[in-house]
Amino acid sequence: MSIYSAKRFEAEVASLFAARDGTAISAPVASLDVTLEGIAGDRHGGMTRTSGGREPWYPRGTEMRNERQLSIVCTDELAVAARAMEIDRIAPEWIGANMVLGGVTDLSKLPPRSLLFFEDGPTIKIDGQNAPCRFAGARIAEHYPDRDDKALALAFPKKAAGLRGLVGWVDRPGTITPGQKVTIQVPEQWIWQG
Amino acid sequence: MSIYSAKRFEAEVASLFAARDGTAISAPVASLDVTLEGIAGDRHGGMTRTSGGREPWYPRGTEMRNERQLSIVCTDELAVAARAMEIDRIAPEWIGANMVLGGVTDLSKLPPRSLLFFEDGPTIKIDGQNAPCRFAGARIAEHYPDRDDKALALAFPKKAAGLRGLVGWVDRPGTITPGQKVTIQVPEQWIWQG
Repeated sequence: MSIYSAKRFEAEVASLFAARDGTAISAPVASLDVTLEGIAGDRHGGMTRTSGGREPWYPRGTEMRNERQLSIVCTDELAVAARAMEIDRIAPEWIGANMVLGGVTDLSKLPPRSLLFFEDGPTIKIDGQNAPCRFAGARIAEHYPDRDDKALALAFPKKAAGLRGLVGWVDRPGTITPGQKVTIQVPEQWIWQG
Repeated sequence: MSIYSAKRFEAEVASLFAARDGTAISAPVASLDVTLEGIAGDRHGGMTRTSGGREPWYPRGTEMRNERQLSIVCTDELAVAARAMEIDRIAPEWIGANMVLGGVTDLSKLPPRSLLFFEDGPTIKIDGQNAPCRFAGARIAEHYPDRDDKALALAFPKKAAGLRGLVGWVDRPGTITPGQKVTIQVPEQWIWQG
């Protein structure tokens, strides 16, 4: 069993997005007001949500706890995924991201239970890695009309695995703004081999 | 970065407890009805809770998301802690546990984001390891009147670290009963060294 100590380090909010019109595509915003329900007015808000394709163990539409209030990505990781898909870029808003964080190595691998303390603001707790899906892939494909749209949509789940950032929920309410410092508290880690 | 694949295995509910009188001590129950708020009528219920000594980063009493709806322990681990404290045993109800699980090696090290699917019943999602505190230690000490109560209370946080089980929340409602099979789904694991 590998053990790795808890640690704290600083990162920064690079940019913010919200999907307030009920679509899966987000748009840049100047700030994000978050409550314990998530982003005010966002389609992913709520203390609970209904299950979908990510929870094949539940009948579709089962009410469950909402651990996916926010989506957080890293520009470097999306660039790696874009290169693997042989496209110029993947914009955070195409895949419905809410936040681009700067200053985090291997953001997508930050462990579950990590806490993100926003300076003078809210806290987000990390559920874990966000699995890339073909629906987000289809929204990327719309920006590359010269490519086979179905093939490009399906490439996203394969090529962006481990690079699509994190999902999490609001632990404490507040306001998030670009440029804000974020203290990231990573819990002690180990590999369970039981 | 160590990688360990996702896995599924079977465990079993050994016994159940609830603290319905508002105290920190639980008592055996024949079943647990759980909703998305946690155990019906339990002091640890609710979608949110107020922060305490476990969250030194918040002013005490801050409303935050409740990730501690249930406490799950393993008899083998509590026996190891009891031996280290030089006492006969630690009963699950003394430390306010809600469930004893059988058939899980190193229960306390089961990773955050693990899912516990109860047969024909609810799902519990694991927040992570429960840190032993001196207040639970004091309740253990009450059962060993021949020992120095303060020393024994303080021994619990030291000797039971990594052995005090898990906390988690209800992901899907239902009823839990002793003898029920539990399928435990452990996510892919890695050590983040960023």
